[in-house]
Amino acid sequence: MKTIAILGSTGSIGTQTLDIVRANKDIRVSSLAAGKNIRLLEEQVREFKPAFCACEDEEDAKVLKENLSDTGVRVYSGMEGLIEVAKDTQSEILVTAIVGMIGIRPTVEAIRAGKDIALANKETLVCAGHIIMPFAHEKGVRILPVDSEHSAIFQSLQGQMYGGPKDAVMGYVPGSDTGAGRTIEKILLTASGGPFRGYTATQLKDVDLADALKHPNWSMGKKVTIDSASLCNKGLEVMEAKWLFDVELDQIQVLIHPQSIVHSAVQYSDGAVIAQMGVPDMKLPIQYALYYPDRRPMDTGRIDFFGLKELTFEEPDTDTFPGLSLAYRAARTGGSMPTVFNAANEEAVRLLIDGKIRFSQIPELINAAMDAHDIINDPDVDDILRVEAQVIRQVEEMA
Amino acid sequence: MKTIAILGSTGSIGTQTLDIVRANKDIRVSSLAAGKNIRLLEEQVREFKPAFCACEDEEDAKVLKENLSDTGVRVYSGMEGLIEVAKDTQSEILVTAIVGMIGIRPTVEAIRAGKDIALANKETLVCAGHIIMPFAHEKGVRILPVDSEHSAIFQSLQGQMYGGPKDAVMGYVPGSDTGAGRTIEKILLTASGGPFRGYTATQLKDVDLADALKHPNWSMGKKVTIDSASLCNKGLEVMEAKWLFDVELDQIQVLIHPQSIVHSAVQYSDGAVIAQMGVPDMKLPIQYALYYPDRRPMDTGRIDFFGLKELTFEEPDTDTFPGLSLAYRAARTGGSMPTVFNAANEEAVRLLIDGKIRFSQIPELINAAMDAHDIINDPDVDDILRVEAQVIRQVEEMA
Repeated sequence: MKTIAILGSTGSIGTQTLDIVRANKDIRVSSLAAGKNIRLLEEQVREFKPAFCACEDEEDAKVLKENLSDTGVRVYSGMEGLIEVAKDTQSEILVTAIVGMIGIRPTVEAIRAGKDIALANKETLVCAGHIIMPFAHEKGVRILPVDSEHSAIFQSLQGQMYGGPKDAVMGYVPGSDTGAGRTIEKILLTASGGPFRGYTATQLKDVDLADALKHPNWSMGKKVTIDSASLCNKGLEVMEAKWLFDVELDQIQVLIHPQSIVHSAVQYSDGAVIAQMGVPDMKLPIQYALYYPDRRPMDTGRIDFFGLKELTFEEPDTDTFPGLSLAYRAARTGGSMPTVFNAANEEAVRLLIDGKIRFSQIPELINAAMDAHDIINDPDVDDILRVEAQVIRQVEEMA
Repeated sequence: MKTIAILGSTGSIGTQTLDIVRANKDIRVSSLAAGKNIRLLEEQVREFKPAFCACEDEEDAKVLKENLSDTGVRVYSGMEGLIEVAKDTQSEILVTAIVGMIGIRPTVEAIRAGKDIALANKETLVCAGHIIMPFAHEKGVRILPVDSEHSAIFQSLQGQMYGGPKDAVMGYVPGSDTGAGRTIEKILLTASGGPFRGYTATQLKDVDLADALKHPNWSMGKKVTIDSASLCNKGLEVMEAKWLFDVELDQIQVLIHPQSIVHSAVQYSDGAVIAQMGVPDMKLPIQYALYYPDRRPMDTGRIDFFGLKELTFEEPDTDTFPGLSLAYRAARTGGSMPTVFNAANEEAVRLLIDGKIRFSQIPELINAAMDAHDIINDPDVDDILRVEAQVIRQVEEMA
């Protein structure tokens, strides 16, 4: 019996994780944390019977506690709640499906408690990769990617480089020459190109929120859909890949692949490319992370090779989509700069959703925030959260 | 230092194997066997300094011995020579790059002597897979595929199913439920489709030898080039894959992939497809087999993803190219029938090269030979060689 805890159980990744729990008899949930959707959280608690749960607001927690009073399930709230779920003594794996930098501290606590991490929270590695990866290595904890692209890379790396399954997930081995970099020549990170693929910068001036939300292949939350349209999402993934797989930025090549069939690939030093392909369905990478290194049968769709028209690959257009080059710049600068990139993008997307800026202003605001920033070289979690708050204020003022 | 012996050192795979030996300082050759090209064999002996060598004819061996009298290198001939090289006490790996059923007996002897086999001789598994795979398993010997497609499948299977690297190459584990079949849903065996892809059966009646020798992507020997044009080569590869990876025939799906970039793939029970891609260059699979499970840097070409027009996949047209369905039929029947398929095809190709039949007669002759055959259920090597001789005579008479 495998036991997991979930941060962000009512979101897209959280609910799909619970679908996998539902479909398998040998996996159970020991605790759940959600945000404001306490109605769904209550349903989840009744169905999956965790020992305790957590929600964002203290007031919501009171209501939920009242509603769940027949169950004996404890209810926590706020950062305390997230950390309780992260450290849950019963769980082996923590699924970090929460969005935002609020996920960093619970992730650190879960690693401290020796939990393997099924990582769906981008900010953890983007902003704090320099803290997380060495700490996970020290604690012998696996960082198992849940993101479709990173899971594809991870699957394409299996059996190719390291000694054992525990090592195989430790991209970052400080000071060692046995890391992935030894045999990996390039990571080929694919991107659909989003709804504006092929647009010129001028055409992009006229697009609105509704256009940005029309992702051609994947059905996802608003934030990540907009990030896909701006290529900022791919920029964040480049930063994650650098930490997860211990490669140089120059070894990460973004390929625009409009059909989203090749989920990503690895090119080895002998020229061989190993790729993972599949239909766009997040259940596969989630299940792969939960049962790693085993594969379990799953009834998701299969690629219809004879129905596919063609698979194509294009170079990303960084003139029209400067989000991607800004991400490379932030990653090269390092220190607190990736946090600036991420916070500025997050705030810009919020402003777009609120109708306060145009889509094309997103990279302009990120660029301005990055230009204005005084680097902190080796930021700790407090520094990261402080920079985040500053950047959010700045971007609000600039918009 | 790795030490290898080569059967078929003057052919396409043999000379490319020696290119790899030339490029790496930690690998050496302990013995070489060739056919009739004793001039090249002499050069190879002088360059690579094996302890002994072998050629096909006794008379050639005398000439070669005379020419090499300054070197002290022993010279053998005939089947004795092949078996001496196969059992070579100094070698760890035998590269079986010899063409034809003559390769079966030396391969058995190499397995008996505990040598790992870098397998490029198709007939070994097509005709004698039921003997070779259990024997290799019993002796703890690795069967390392050198063929581009099987190497791609093998690379796509790494880290996915078995315990250790020794097990990982043992497709056939008699009576066990831990074989590849447990997690493999399908093997996706790609084929370029050859020069006649898209032809109708009527158009195919008019093609001649010169047309059949124009392979769109790969530069190979005449026999395999013609087999690619008739899809008989893919049929032989289906039979090899069945033995190598311990899967049912229905789990092997041939995909026509005209660009020859995806060299083959594996679809797992969770829907994930792992594919190996690369430029068409046999050095990669040869080197992968020799250094398995390590990868070594190699200066072969890299896929130019942005230069690629597109990747496409089509269903094979078995009406126009019955060679493929005949192969499935032979494999399903089992016993001595794959030997009949292979021998009839081999003889038909010989007749085509000699200008005695048309290209479209190849499957007709195979079909007739298969119809005329009385199955032997569990043929030993002598049975296989006897059936081969019978079928060759029959096909000659029928043509």
